[in-house]
Amino acid sequence: MEHPCETAKRLSPDHHRLPQVVRWDDATGSVVILDQTRLPSDLVYRTCVDVQQVWHAIYELAVRGAPAIGIAAAYGVCVAARASLDTVRDRALRATHLLATSRPTAVNLFWALDQMRDVIDKTTADRDLFAALLAQAQAIHQQDRELCAAIGRLGAMRLGQERRLVERGDEPVTILTHCNAGALATGGQGTALSPIYELHGQGRVIRVIADETRPLLQGARLTAWELHHMGVPVTVITDSMAGWIMRLGQVDAVIVGADRIAANGDTANKIGTYSLALLARHHHIPFFVAAPHSTFDMKLLSGDLIPIEQRAADEVRFVFGRLTTPVDCDVLNPAFDVTPAELITAIITDRGVIESPSLSTVAAIIGDR
Amino acid sequence: MEHPCETAKRLSPDHHRLPQVVRWDDATGSVVILDQTRLPSDLVYRTCVDVQQVWHAIYELAVRGAPAIGIAAAYGVCVAARASLDTVRDRALRATHLLATSRPTAVNLFWALDQMRDVIDKTTADRDLFAALLAQAQAIHQQDRELCAAIGRLGAMRLGQERRLVERGDEPVTILTHCNAGALATGGQGTALSPIYELHGQGRVIRVIADETRPLLQGARLTAWELHHMGVPVTVITDSMAGWIMRLGQVDAVIVGADRIAANGDTANKIGTYSLALLARHHHIPFFVAAPHSTFDMKLLSGDLIPIEQRAADEVRFVFGRLTTPVDCDVLNPAFDVTPAELITAIITDRGVIESPSLSTVAAIIGDR
Repeated sequence: MEHPCETAKRLSPDHHRLPQVVRWDDATGSVVILDQTRLPSDLVYRTCVDVQQVWHAIYELAVRGAPAIGIAAAYGVCVAARASLDTVRDRALRATHLLATSRPTAVNLFWALDQMRDVIDKTTADRDLFAALLAQAQAIHQQDRELCAAIGRLGAMRLGQERRLVERGDEPVTILTHCNAGALATGGQGTALSPIYELHGQGRVIRVIADETRPLLQGARLTAWELHHMGVPVTVITDSMAGWIMRLGQVDAVIVGADRIAANGDTANKIGTYSLALLARHHHIPFFVAAPHSTFDMKLLSGDLIPIEQRAADEVRFVFGRLTTPVDCDVLNPAFDVTPAELITAIITDRGVIESPSLSTVAAIIGDR
Repeated sequence: MEHPCETAKRLSPDHHRLPQVVRWDDATGSVVILDQTRLPSDLVYRTCVDVQQVWHAIYELAVRGAPAIGIAAAYGVCVAARASLDTVRDRALRATHLLATSRPTAVNLFWALDQMRDVIDKTTADRDLFAALLAQAQAIHQQDRELCAAIGRLGAMRLGQERRLVERGDEPVTILTHCNAGALATGGQGTALSPIYELHGQGRVIRVIADETRPLLQGARLTAWELHHMGVPVTVITDSMAGWIMRLGQVDAVIVGADRIAANGDTANKIGTYSLALLARHHHIPFFVAAPHSTFDMKLLSGDLIPIEQRAADEVRFVFGRLTTPVDCDVLNPAFDVTPAELITAIITDRGVIESPSLSTVAAIIGDR
């Protein structure tokens, strides 16, 4: 189905540069969102001219990845605020409430909307509000670029010190990842993939194994696509192969992103992450989470308290519009799972690397947020 | 793509009876094979009038499942033998060689072809050969029905004694399975699913969780379909969800089939089985393998010696003809993995239940085959 406000072009190889996932278009006062549901076959942008279109873009995963969702939501508030000076405050505030209902698990969404609400509270003159909101959204966007870069630097250093990678010497190293926590999930060069880009840039020979990540195939469709564009060798496997590939000795480290991290380090991420962490532990493979400090929800003492989004059954029942099961077959579709902190070797954040995550080690790096 | 010799009909609900996976058609001297690549949307039969068509049906997974492959291959030798009395011995022998190249891992294929070769060796008169081969193929087919029934009886008894199931009392029990080791994989009522049908028939309330089983979705397409037809409640999950569902306490036991079992109990089965076994062990969930004695390859002392079929990259790259990855993206596609015996609670065979499989416990039940 074509979205009414979209521009499309066939993909051509444009190595080493990636399209912008979300951007503000000042001329039209709209948010332009790369429609990731159409990748890898088509490069299509959705031009969202009202907040409902931004809500749909988040809900339908046209824009996805915890940091990118936060950025899109911040610009979504700007779209709502721009329409008319009369009701700007009311519309901006209602936009924050609406957008908060688009995805329940990614905490960056709420973090970004909290910042937009702060701006609404602190800006007394209605005529200044739109400009203040846009400045805040752009600051959130710019900050995310910097957070990604910091995660890349710290993560590359941490991975470089890991025993299995040190032992490889000049041999290629293989890093397994799940879903997409790359440039397509953020305003910058990604979270989980950022240290990989950094090491690749330093000339380290890295090969990535990307789980395809059913049901929505973000690994096959998005991670493979962006790594391919950036010239990083990538091999796709089905999710069920990860354990066997580990047993064959082909994985040196696992690194994934996060949608929400509790104060003790328990991490909600794409369904399948928990299994990967267990399989990595069994095979003595280090398991890293990479996320900006905004992904921590310090109000939650443990991962048991993280709400898990249950998505539509048809995401499992259908692949590309073809039914895979009997009609109306019962299915489960939790979008996320929670990996207990004890299975995580370290969490790589923009503020530092949290080794052996726990209440105390997380607080030492993240503070009380 | 339509196969030239096929009859198709839309599926209508026909509960509690399943179509025949493979049958000999005496009128035309052909093997009629249910094309499982077309399920669950279409019920289509391939009429194979020469041995090449049988080879293709096995190679392309129109017929799959270790026991069913053996049966199809046995009838395939009959198809070759029927064409002309002149060269019957030569053609039958060549058919056994050709068919042995169709799938490398399933040992039942070689076991069935060995029996057909014995018949060729022992039948001195050419004019008796076709009838002798057909009788042998039908005996293999009939034997498989009986093996499945025996596995069902013994497996139902064994599962019924398992602590987690006993503790459920009259509550529903949930059994997780991977791929399809049901009626569609055999000449009878299946291997892994046979104890489930048996318990269901006894009035025990059973719910099955079926891993969808990428890349070819045998769990979603076949297991869900046959259980649905047989009136057994089934829920499909993506392969990546199994660990999380176990952690939530929703799985009482895991049961899978096998393609080849080494003399020490190491078991080759559909890729993903090894991960499941590890995840089950971590969550203290019993993990069962169900297979006829013909699945044991007593010449192999351990699973390291089992050849693992690597299948075409496009099985991973495409789902229903749609590309999921960048064009020509590197992928891995091992069709099977090997689960070490120490992760297997018991192997349920037609000859008895092998608890804590090892060289000695396997030999005690299977003999030296």
